Amino acid sequence: MPFEIDDTHDPNLESWVESANETDHDFPIQNLPIGRFEELDEDGDPTGDTRAAVAIGDEVVDLTMLWEAGLLEDLPLDLDEDESLDTIDLDLGSRLELRRILSSLLSAGADEEVQDSVRECFITEYTDMAITTPFDIGDYTDFYASVFHATNVGSMFRPDNPLLPNYKHIPIAYHGRASTVVVSGTDVRRPCGQTKADDAPAPSFGPCKLFDYELEVGAFVSPGSELGSRISIEEAEEHLFGICLVNDWSARDMQKWEYQPLGPFLAKSFATTISPWVVTMEALAPFRSPAMTRPAGDPSPLPHLYSRDNETTGGVDLTLEVHLASEQMRQKGLQPALLSRGTFRDMYWTLAQMLTHHTSNGCEMRDGDLIASGTVSGTTRESRGCLLELTWNGDPFADPKVVVPGTDRTPIELPTGEKRVFLADGDEVFIKGYCQRPGYRRIGFGECRGIVLPANE
Amino acid sequence: MPFEIDDTHDPNLESWVESANETDHDFPIQNLPIGRFEELDEDGDPTGDTRAAVAIGDEVVDLTMLWEAGLLEDLPLDLDEDESLDTIDLDLGSRLELRRILSSLLSAGADEEVQDSVRECFITEYTDMAITTPFDIGDYTDFYASVFHATNVGSMFRPDNPLLPNYKHIPIAYHGRASTVVVSGTDVRRPCGQTKADDAPAPSFGPCKLFDYELEVGAFVSPGSELGSRISIEEAEEHLFGICLVNDWSARDMQKWEYQPLGPFLAKSFATTISPWVVTMEALAPFRSPAMTRPAGDPSPLPHLYSRDNETTGGVDLTLEVHLASEQMRQKGLQPALLSRGTFRDMYWTLAQMLTHHTSNGCEMRDGDLIASGTVSGTTRESRGCLLELTWNGDPFADPKVVVPGTDRTPIELPTGEKRVFLADGDEVFIKGYCQRPGYRRIGFGECRGIVLPANE
Repeated sequence: MPFEIDDTHDPNLESWVESANETDHDFPIQNLPIGRFEELDEDGDPTGDTRAAVAIGDEVVDLTMLWEAGLLEDLPLDLDEDESLDTIDLDLGSRLELRRILSSLLSAGADEEVQDSVRECFITEYTDMAITTPFDIGDYTDFYASVFHATNVGSMFRPDNPLLPNYKHIPIAYHGRASTVVVSGTDVRRPCGQTKADDAPAPSFGPCKLFDYELEVGAFVSPGSELGSRISIEEAEEHLFGICLVNDWSARDMQKWEYQPLGPFLAKSFATTISPWVVTMEALAPFRSPAMTRPAGDPSPLPHLYSRDNETTGGVDLTLEVHLASEQMRQKGLQPALLSRGTFRDMYWTLAQMLTHHTSNGCEMRDGDLIASGTVSGTTRESRGCLLELTWNGDPFADPKVVVPGTDRTPIELPTGEKRVFLADGDEVFIKGYCQRPGYRRIGFGECRGIVLPANE
Repeated sequence: MPFEIDDTHDPNLESWVESANETDHDFPIQNLPIGRFEELDEDGDPTGDTRAAVAIGDEVVDLTMLWEAGLLEDLPLDLDEDESLDTIDLDLGSRLELRRILSSLLSAGADEEVQDSVRECFITEYTDMAITTPFDIGDYTDFYASVFHATNVGSMFRPDNPLLPNYKHIPIAYHGRASTVVVSGTDVRRPCGQTKADDAPAPSFGPCKLFDYELEVGAFVSPGSELGSRISIEEAEEHLFGICLVNDWSARDMQKWEYQPLGPFLAKSFATTISPWVVTMEALAPFRSPAMTRPAGDPSPLPHLYSRDNETTGGVDLTLEVHLASEQMRQKGLQPALLSRGTFRDMYWTLAQMLTHHTSNGCEMRDGDLIASGTVSGTTRESRGCLLELTWNGDPFADPKVVVPGTDRTPIELPTGEKRVFLADGDEVFIKGYCQRPGYRRIGFGECRGIVLPANE
């Protein structure tokens, strides 16, 4: 593993940015996640000009201004044509150096003059800037790396043969749609599409009836790789910049009708929400964990997907939650209700294995490409990462004769008494994530949320 | 249809660029395809700075220089930060106007002064420029729009049920990989990947053994559409900029092992070759044709995918060919051998239907997104657009007990006596395309070729 625990992870380190020292703040000085703002024009529309930033407590520091102030020393940062740092695109050594510098500038021990200079780089109060995706995402790939999710979903459609023969040998994935990866807070319109009930003679077109979320984790690739070259399992971690939260919104009725033989398409491509702050792999050093223990009898990964380091520290001990607030709940001032809690340790394939597999055919990776994990589900009902699994496809199309042992088609009941099998218009879905471990400061992932708007008919 | 036949299609129109007047030149003055060059640095590496251009005969005209010379009148063209036209991004009215202006500037009737000014914009001889993809491709989508291809491939894997129930209702597609769309002439390395023979106890990793091409047609989207909005079937043609040739290289053995349940992934993502010149929809006006006649008993398209105009002129009468030259053939100076010839009229779904379907869920389209048709195959052996179909999966993994009537597993014999079931290292594959119709000048699509390099083990 290239990421060591060092002084920047010291739990006793405090910042002169007071909010960062609050208990359970997502962004203490030990985190320092990287994100990006976009300038808005006079009408409030995005201009396409982006500026990289770092979050600390409730503040956001503009890295371009920090660079202009001479505070980033001699990091090999490239200003773009607008003289701004539009994204952070660094090799591993420089990324570690950037973390060390930011930690030092923001630590309570920084002298007053430095604090004043950094304070002038705060962009938190700017109204002509909006937070955007942390990178220009060239390609977005969605994996299927939870064996529990794959088994659950497989059970619904193939009760006798839930897991296909390739699953334990090859990290299954499909190409996603990059144009519709949106940042947290973007409203998500219920899609329309073709669906067909099992007993209907023909399909029809209309609003999705089985609208779902999927709790996922995304990893940003940087630096990328060249066309025709491979990233080995030993090198893979160096090419992972950091991770974010992902909600892979899914139209289950559309998916069921369209997905054979080429996989999901319009059931996914209308929107994918990500959290705006990338928690760097450097920040995650204290929270690395062994990869999931493969059950006895499972095959070993093929040699190109195996490394001892990956087995021992390829996982991330990241707790993940889904919360939901209906429109009624928000009107009544109720807190979002917890729907599930799981852990990213439960994945059958690690991020390093996903990236190594992805480039094993020579596929070029570009800086900022996004790799998502697929739905993170665990062994218990409480840890299932989508409504399809939580309410076990309790949908109007399901065959009531098919009863799968251990399943529960009971709808979810919200604090208002409202019931949910799938999402209703006005529902706001929140994905949350945090790492905690005795002896270290808890670090959080910020917000990943979106409200379901009614379909445009 | 927004595209009318006008004076720019007059077969008697000649250009003062003499090569454009040669019989059967791909780029007569009636064509005027749009492409893009990229500046190279001192080491010959691409700089990322692109400039839009138009091809005429053997010459290429730099549109930025044409604009600087004041010859593009008041077209609403946006220069980028480098003061160049990096891509052409125009609404339909302006595109028609651009064609009219270019046709006039390049016609034999243009006065000497204009000819001299245009001649100064030729970049054909520049050595510090290389042709590149015509747009920055944000997303690449690959359809499956030939019912003959879908039926052939389905027959191999599901002899009793070749065509899935959704096929005739919904244009099937999957998201492709944008980072590895390469321009004609780029060498394509045989990918490595996981494969598993039916009788093998476990998969193994190594070079692809069943390396194939797929003859396809690609359409560039411009202008795009906004997140959450749809492009209706009536509007779709206005959002199609033009078309190119596509070779969707495919690793069949990898595809077979990986594709369930989420579709093709690494079997495709190592490379997709496109021709560099986009033949505009305006240029294609004389060659529009009815959509394929659906056999009696087939369902009508759902209302959102149906328009009378699309039925009558939604097709393109484009002849497509695949040629192959082995290394031995090239050494002996032999011409590439014709492997197949088909027509783009034979598609079950039109480009307009593909685009309308694609945005029916509100998926955002960006300028320059690429939509490919899927393999173009016809009803006869001679019109099959990939080796899988031509040699009917005549591969070492095929079950010899499964004999499908009407199929032919005979390997292809090249003029050197070499035989091919799938591609060999050193093979160069050429996709060619042209439109011709009595009373009009033939227009061609230029080159779409690539040589297979041995795998990197």
